[in-house]
Amino acid sequence: MLSDPFKSHFLFLILSFSLCVSQTLALNSVPEPDASALTYLWPLPSEFTSGNHTLSVDPDLSLAVAGIGGSSAILRAAFDRYRAIIFKHTSGISIFSRFTGRSSVYDISKLKIIVNSDNEELQLGVDESYTLFVSKNDGKSIIGEATIEANTVYGALRALETFSQLCSFDYGTKSVQIYKAPWCIRDKPRFAFRGLLLDTSRHYFPIYVIKQIIESMSYAKLNVFHWHIIDEESFPLEVPAYPKLWKGSYTKWERYTVEDAYEIVKMPLFLFLDYFMWCVTGINVMAEIDIPGHAESWGTGYPDLWPSTSCREPLDVTKNFTFDVISGILTDMRKIFPFELFHLGGDEVNTDCWSSTPHVKQWLQDRNMTAKDAYKYFVLKAQEIAISKNWTPVNWEETFNTFAENLNPRTVVHNWLGAGVCPKAVAKGFKCIFSNQGFWYLDHLDVPWNEVYTAEPLEGINDTSKQALVLGGEVCMWGETADTSDVQQTIWPRAAAAAERMWSRRDAISTGNIALTALPRLQYFRCLLNRRGVQAAPVTNKYARRPPTGAGSCYEQ
Amino acid sequence: MLSDPFKSHFLFLILSFSLCVSQTLALNSVPEPDASALTYLWPLPSEFTSGNHTLSVDPDLSLAVAGIGGSSAILRAAFDRYRAIIFKHTSGISIFSRFTGRSSVYDISKLKIIVNSDNEELQLGVDESYTLFVSKNDGKSIIGEATIEANTVYGALRALETFSQLCSFDYGTKSVQIYKAPWCIRDKPRFAFRGLLLDTSRHYFPIYVIKQIIESMSYAKLNVFHWHIIDEESFPLEVPAYPKLWKGSYTKWERYTVEDAYEIVKMPLFLFLDYFMWCVTGINVMAEIDIPGHAESWGTGYPDLWPSTSCREPLDVTKNFTFDVISGILTDMRKIFPFELFHLGGDEVNTDCWSSTPHVKQWLQDRNMTAKDAYKYFVLKAQEIAISKNWTPVNWEETFNTFAENLNPRTVVHNWLGAGVCPKAVAKGFKCIFSNQGFWYLDHLDVPWNEVYTAEPLEGINDTSKQALVLGGEVCMWGETADTSDVQQTIWPRAAAAAERMWSRRDAISTGNIALTALPRLQYFRCLLNRRGVQAAPVTNKYARRPPTGAGSCYEQ
Repeated sequence: MLSDPFKSHFLFLILSFSLCVSQTLALNSVPEPDASALTYLWPLPSEFTSGNHTLSVDPDLSLAVAGIGGSSAILRAAFDRYRAIIFKHTSGISIFSRFTGRSSVYDISKLKIIVNSDNEELQLGVDESYTLFVSKNDGKSIIGEATIEANTVYGALRALETFSQLCSFDYGTKSVQIYKAPWCIRDKPRFAFRGLLLDTSRHYFPIYVIKQIIESMSYAKLNVFHWHIIDEESFPLEVPAYPKLWKGSYTKWERYTVEDAYEIVKMPLFLFLDYFMWCVTGINVMAEIDIPGHAESWGTGYPDLWPSTSCREPLDVTKNFTFDVISGILTDMRKIFPFELFHLGGDEVNTDCWSSTPHVKQWLQDRNMTAKDAYKYFVLKAQEIAISKNWTPVNWEETFNTFAENLNPRTVVHNWLGAGVCPKAVAKGFKCIFSNQGFWYLDHLDVPWNEVYTAEPLEGINDTSKQALVLGGEVCMWGETADTSDVQQTIWPRAAAAAERMWSRRDAISTGNIALTALPRLQYFRCLLNRRGVQAAPVTNKYARRPPTGAGSCYEQ
Repeated sequence: MLSDPFKSHFLFLILSFSLCVSQTLALNSVPEPDASALTYLWPLPSEFTSGNHTLSVDPDLSLAVAGIGGSSAILRAAFDRYRAIIFKHTSGISIFSRFTGRSSVYDISKLKIIVNSDNEELQLGVDESYTLFVSKNDGKSIIGEATIEANTVYGALRALETFSQLCSFDYGTKSVQIYKAPWCIRDKPRFAFRGLLLDTSRHYFPIYVIKQIIESMSYAKLNVFHWHIIDEESFPLEVPAYPKLWKGSYTKWERYTVEDAYEIVKMPLFLFLDYFMWCVTGINVMAEIDIPGHAESWGTGYPDLWPSTSCREPLDVTKNFTFDVISGILTDMRKIFPFELFHLGGDEVNTDCWSSTPHVKQWLQDRNMTAKDAYKYFVLKAQEIAISKNWTPVNWEETFNTFAENLNPRTVVHNWLGAGVCPKAVAKGFKCIFSNQGFWYLDHLDVPWNEVYTAEPLEGINDTSKQALVLGGEVCMWGETADTSDVQQTIWPRAAAAAERMWSRRDAISTGNIALTALPRLQYFRCLLNRRGVQAAPVTNKYARRPPTGAGSCYEQ
């Protein structure tokens, strides 16, 4: 019996999948690595079978759509983007072959995509499942050469990524080939939330770089870009309601306009003549303002937000103005960020300034509050503001560790300090995101790929109903030593190790010798990133992002 | 009296330039750095004046052409490319303003480009001079708002780069502005050959990366991409005449087809519908095969090229086959590379294998030749082959150091070992390229930007006629520890320091405190590269390409 996400509205697809399964018997098994196998996939799909045929792919690959979601503009844009990726290497050849008049017959000249829903809303938990069949059309089958079926356009997007990874440029024939066909793949993610944090406060990243990072995430099927926009060092974002806030930017050139922020959410690729190209990635953007700590830069424009000019953090808890500003920021941000989750930070709050600044001290005494009480007061008030704007609040784990019983039950607890927090959070009924800094903080350069790979978000949680409260996990790219020059190679390839952990079946990736089952595929994926223009670093470096130690092949470093 | 390259065919331009000069008196002077000055240029133009007006630039900036070269497709493509660069930041805004219907009046809505020749041949010494005027159109002047005049399209390309650097995105008005107008710039390069070497043998770079590097070179007005394609570690290039040669590649995925090589020369950006976009950079590609040393990988496909299977370098000097293969490679390459210079290597030839391999030893004895004689024999024979194919041979300096008197007089001597070689070479009438490894080898990570900047190709050459024999210089990006993950930040920003040395007037950049006259501009240029998607590293790092040591602004790191 096919599980729900795979329930097909097209009988022939079910029939065809059965045929496909009968051809090869390895369904559900993880294939042994094979040095001669030319096709590697990352992250590993839930279920797949392959064969032993090689198929050629037409550079003029066309799209045929079906299903009530088939006419989606998102789908068309995604297909165009992936066609460009798949034929990146052959573009020159096809350009020159126009002059020489070469032409060939190809096995795969059409990709059929069936989308069973026309609901294009991108939110947490959107159905990303898909099926993908690739086989030589024998002229008898109704399903044709390459067929994707998905319940949503976002499932189709994930399928297109997988399809693009099946395609590789063959230097013998100078064409794109699919090895080991027929392919029958049924796939879906293990977790709904598969995130990457980028910190644009410690270093500013041009929006062009941010868009490249978001696009690179799609290659590993990550789906939440956590934008840690502001921190104590700089406030780069324009806030129309409080236009002096971005005076806290490093320079007047290191800023994001409201339009820039829209661009990061919408990902326009370019405008050509009157045709929009969108870089459609199906990636949610979760914005963060990290309060009340990590907010010194707010006071550059509005010094009233500081307890005093000599003691500038946390934000002044005593003033209505502080919460007016927060509310103003959130109102302006709500117009930009449609994602249901909003991150309110709440970590590393050192309340010394509150205890030592006379007017704050007095305010606490008047209310018979400790500084810790004020921390709770602040966080809960900010949560109320976010909830009033129809946001689900996310907080770093200190809020849960300090006053779990008071947190709004909708709070998503974001783990970072270490192990054991998600088990506690879900035991109390909270949702949780796993980012144990010992493994998933990408600025920890001494963590090798295999430790990133084996860190398990469900560790210590055995009850299935409690496991369901773990939304997923997130790798965090803090910015103290990451700028435009080195951010991609600090993120990649280790973020990919976490991405497979979050996407693929736990049983499939938690057994066997990962030096054989995962490492060769990860090295292949790193080189794939390089080919796509992403500066992923060598996989087996002793320290992350270090240059290669000597000459050699990408596939062995 | 205007010097030749600036001789205008348009009287009004001369008149206008005079007007411009009369407005500001600082012509020929290098302006003092001014922290409040918003516009920095890199490399410094030969002559320029600026004013104190701020002009806004229309995102729908249009092109008007004149002169017999004005209708060039190269010019149109270059304009389109630079318009995309200039308005990269505003693209989102203009997209969204289409919906909101915003519109404005701009000071600069048209760029006029006059090209005085329709000769589009790109070769060494092509006229790259240009004049650029930017002023507010008062309705009376005939020359309009922004005007470029050049003798060739390649001069116009350099002018477009300068124009793009005058334009900066202003976060207050959310539009592109030109500060310090009116601008009157007359510019030309000091050296005809301003190169960057990339080694694709120690590590393979996808063509996508190579094209990005070539495009980034154009930002610093470098104009020769020296492609060190093959070395002892790997032979990535397809050679149709000897199809087994690329068996010497690391893997079957780390190869360049003939079409790839064409693409590196022609730089197609993408094909959209039926419209070609070319990334026109005006950069020559100088190919290299480094013989007879550095060629072990050749024998993977053709073991006969080795003296023996146990002693594999230099190439077997005794066999006609060796020279047949060289001739075949050069014949195939001649179809791809139109540049008049071809690099034959010739460095670091350890002849031990020749002296120790019986059949080679016998061959030497039969001819009463030493191994050193055989080295000369090999190099001269290769030079003859290259010359017969209408190429000017370039050789690393060892050939000059060892047998200068025998070298073909057309030989270009490529310095690398240290100081003093170009003075000796030009004294003997040879042309020379300066790449002193102590300063211009980019893999030497301990050379700070200022030592790169002050290295002078004409050092020790005082006679003007001898100075004219120094074609220029080249920074070298050897590939032992440079791969896709780190190559751009190893090249930049230090390559830019050499680029200004090679482009700008020696007197203008050799006096004063470069920490004040050059460093702030270089830091600005590094951030400009970052904004354009190039991973240029911090400028003031102790070691090149290291990440920033802490949080901070791009402009201060």
